[in-house]
Amino acid sequence: MAYRDRVLMGPGPCNVSPEVSAALAAPLLGHLDPEFLHVLDETCSRLRQVFQTTNPLTLPLSATGSGGMEAAFVNLVRPGDPVVVGINGLFGERMAEVASRHGADVVRVEAPWGEPLDPQRLLDAHRAPKVIAVVHAETSTGVRNDVEPLGRSKGDAVLLVDCVTSLGGVEVDVDGWGVDVAYSGSQKCLGVPPGLAPITVSPEGRRRLVQRPTSWYFDLDLIARYVEGDGGGRTYHHTAPVAMVMALHAGLGLLLDEGLAQVWQRHLDAGRALQQGLEELGLELVGPPSHRLPQLTVVRVPDGVDSAAVRRQLLERYGIEIGAGAGPWASTVWRIGCMGPSAASRHVALLLAALGEVLGR
Amino acid sequence: MAYRDRVLMGPGPCNVSPEVSAALAAPLLGHLDPEFLHVLDETCSRLRQVFQTTNPLTLPLSATGSGGMEAAFVNLVRPGDPVVVGINGLFGERMAEVASRHGADVVRVEAPWGEPLDPQRLLDAHRAPKVIAVVHAETSTGVRNDVEPLGRSKGDAVLLVDCVTSLGGVEVDVDGWGVDVAYSGSQKCLGVPPGLAPITVSPEGRRRLVQRPTSWYFDLDLIARYVEGDGGGRTYHHTAPVAMVMALHAGLGLLLDEGLAQVWQRHLDAGRALQQGLEELGLELVGPPSHRLPQLTVVRVPDGVDSAAVRRQLLERYGIEIGAGAGPWASTVWRIGCMGPSAASRHVALLLAALGEVLGR
Repeated sequence: MAYRDRVLMGPGPCNVSPEVSAALAAPLLGHLDPEFLHVLDETCSRLRQVFQTTNPLTLPLSATGSGGMEAAFVNLVRPGDPVVVGINGLFGERMAEVASRHGADVVRVEAPWGEPLDPQRLLDAHRAPKVIAVVHAETSTGVRNDVEPLGRSKGDAVLLVDCVTSLGGVEVDVDGWGVDVAYSGSQKCLGVPPGLAPITVSPEGRRRLVQRPTSWYFDLDLIARYVEGDGGGRTYHHTAPVAMVMALHAGLGLLLDEGLAQVWQRHLDAGRALQQGLEELGLELVGPPSHRLPQLTVVRVPDGVDSAAVRRQLLERYGIEIGAGAGPWASTVWRIGCMGPSAASRHVALLLAALGEVLGR
Repeated sequence: MAYRDRVLMGPGPCNVSPEVSAALAAPLLGHLDPEFLHVLDETCSRLRQVFQTTNPLTLPLSATGSGGMEAAFVNLVRPGDPVVVGINGLFGERMAEVASRHGADVVRVEAPWGEPLDPQRLLDAHRAPKVIAVVHAETSTGVRNDVEPLGRSKGDAVLLVDCVTSLGGVEVDVDGWGVDVAYSGSQKCLGVPPGLAPITVSPEGRRRLVQRPTSWYFDLDLIARYVEGDGGGRTYHHTAPVAMVMALHAGLGLLLDEGLAQVWQRHLDAGRALQQGLEELGLELVGPPSHRLPQLTVVRVPDGVDSAAVRRQLLERYGIEIGAGAGPWASTVWRIGCMGPSAASRHVALLLAALGEVLGR
């Protein structure tokens, strides 16, 4: 039998709730329709709650999470600016590349893949960095980096944090931690299809935005004139992706109805059960237990096992998607997500049962 | 009674077909799922048919039409490059701004808003331009600019054409006209919600792409490695917006099933009926008849009539959306779209009846 649907347990997208699907398929509204603008305002307000911030400049960018990364750097970095970037995985590496393309003087602070970064090394890396940038949840390794110590001691630097895989899955406290710019993606723990990048900018971060940056599409000042304006005062920038915003609005609504703390606990429970089950199958997890993400588990492919063949069997026999490794780890690890609606006992039980069968354990 | 749906007759988005809504709400697939990659390949193939091109590099960018514009310039323009831009409306103006931000030496060739550009003036504007850029269908004025003469005589220049409002509504012949780079938006005549920017690049255009452009997100070379690769050979760039791609796939399928020529004729019929009806109501159309777009009609607000009040009444009493003017024309014209599924006798008859009632004519 060929499956027409999927149990999505890769590194994103996850499965989405019926309410999110219904929002996608709802009758389309224009991007300047009062009803849509109300939904957009509410979406921004819900994003503030999930980011735990009062930042007025909080909105969904019309791009995927990687577009959020680009927007963050293009709006903050001028050629020659010293930018400290923490690198312990593919997405830290990508931050360095994006910053470099925009002319930053990148100061690399590295840790081995699978290990967390030492915040003090980031703080000590440059006398007066313009930006300190770090990935909160490394999607390539399943490792969490500590953000709070960076906010406490950042000095005059702008603290830029990639929350693509963390937001909605583990605590993200933008205001409490002193984060100036944080972005995420819709398709991870927010439980919405890929295509939007929520972003939030602190008042201090906003004061330091580049005027007329190279990118017109990601120019936060222009975007804010549309998103933040009231009815008559909104200035058209580009046509908002209305169906995706409706979906994000619905997904955030479900998340907040459940409660932030409850949602984190659900991710924690699912992730712990999965990780325990994988170890009981004799598999080895990546990263120190203290910094393992519950929503994204990275596990080593056992010696002699064909990584791709296992993924294919999971997909074909059970309709389950898990992820290959990223970059140099492509065939040596699997990445298993418990994100959004996929952070559920049903998903964990099924995956463990199916993987056990496929591995013959 | 408050309408929960809308008759969308603004400058985009238009109403979408039930099949497109169903595709949005279909069970989500991962962005590396073989089934999704098949849909993506087919989407690119369908885009080639609609663009009338054999260009291998033809794909949907993960951004709105304005992101398509940015991608086109960021991949073609190096600082100091002479770029001739035709400007007879808001989107030509935007092209000049985007090109300028990427360091182009912009040569402006202007015509008054509401008039078409003279192609010969574009060709004569610079001895050896790197790029000649023009908007095919000006969404701010409803005027079509001639592209074919530019392709015939472009010399060594790359011909870059904005087809956001034209593609699927009037003929666009990328190969026949010698267009090197063309981009569009999903929410106009393709009949899909906003959020994707189809783009196509000729082999010659591709040879002249900037290596490692400022923008990582819009780097066409990196994007192509994901979109064009075969199963095992695809290199992850960013997470494709799968639900939107499914919707575009469905919308393009409907369009091609109907037939390109038939779809253009339907837009022509709807636009002519609308424009004749508006004149019968005593309203004045913008632009010379030879260059008026059928899919987007721009009509002057009669003296003494409150533009916004009329739009509000159409929305509240009939659930019909039409557009205000853009930029300096904000309150002096209305923009009425007959795009995609909104290019239909039912839409035209309803709009004319409702507008006649609101205006008391």
